[in-house]
Amino acid sequence: MDEAEALRRLGEARVGRLATADRQGVPHVVPFAFAVDGRTVFWAVDRKPKRSKRLKRLDNIEANPNVELVVDHYDEDWEALWWVRAAGTARIVVDPDERDRALALLREKYGQYRTALPDGPVVAVDLVRVSGWQSR
Amino acid sequence: MDEAEALRRLGEARVGRLATADRQGVPHVVPFAFAVDGRTVFWAVDRKPKRSKRLKRLDNIEANPNVELVVDHYDEDWEALWWVRAAGTARIVVDPDERDRALALLREKYGQYRTALPDGPVVAVDLVRVSGWQSR
Repeated sequence: MDEAEALRRLGEARVGRLATADRQGVPHVVPFAFAVDGRTVFWAVDRKPKRSKRLKRLDNIEANPNVELVVDHYDEDWEALWWVRAAGTARIVVDPDERDRALALLREKYGQYRTALPDGPVVAVDLVRVSGWQSR
Repeated sequence: MDEAEALRRLGEARVGRLATADRQGVPHVVPFAFAVDGRTVFWAVDRKPKRSKRLKRLDNIEANPNVELVVDHYDEDWEALWWVRAAGTARIVVDPDERDRALALLREKYGQYRTALPDGPVVAVDLVRVSGWQSR
């Protein structure tokens, strides 16, 4: 799979799984919703009940900005499997224009965000490597 | 979600995503098939074409045995989302009896393994923490 096709599948995926790691290299992985803008992936922290404690993935990113995300298709026919992995560095979006743009992209992709936009931090992952694999 | 329910969902999931990290804390995440035996997760490396180079996840585990895996349900109805995360330490299975047991569990769970068992390394993840989340 070439990079253009990998980026296309990344952009269309409805859910990905995001891996971060803390300063000691202990990994953490969660499913997440995201939008792709060129070679940047944006995601946002939803308002949720009991969200008083900081999210582990935000702590990890502050301590260690290296992240990797994967989107994939699982099928009981293992000849139909594929995945796309994207590695990059993550940063909390502080520029208000970039935040607005990221939230607009998220709302455009996810109808679920149209009624209630996330009000937590927005994170950008600037991609440095995108690769794909496909079973035959 | 209590731990028993989290372990039940982990065991039934057909695919998970496994996060490892290298010695520098750079995370890596891939979809994977696995079987659960008590508080141990087993997976095996398939024979694949062009598998001459070592898998990154095996290199990572040798350098840093900390791993985390996640199984989840994605649904366009975000009230139906859930995930289970399991963290632990990974090791290559060297005991032949344990390897046989792991491969038997994998074959039992996945019909796809009945015609061709994986012939690469088998990895055990001894779980130290299992937690679940469910949208309401």
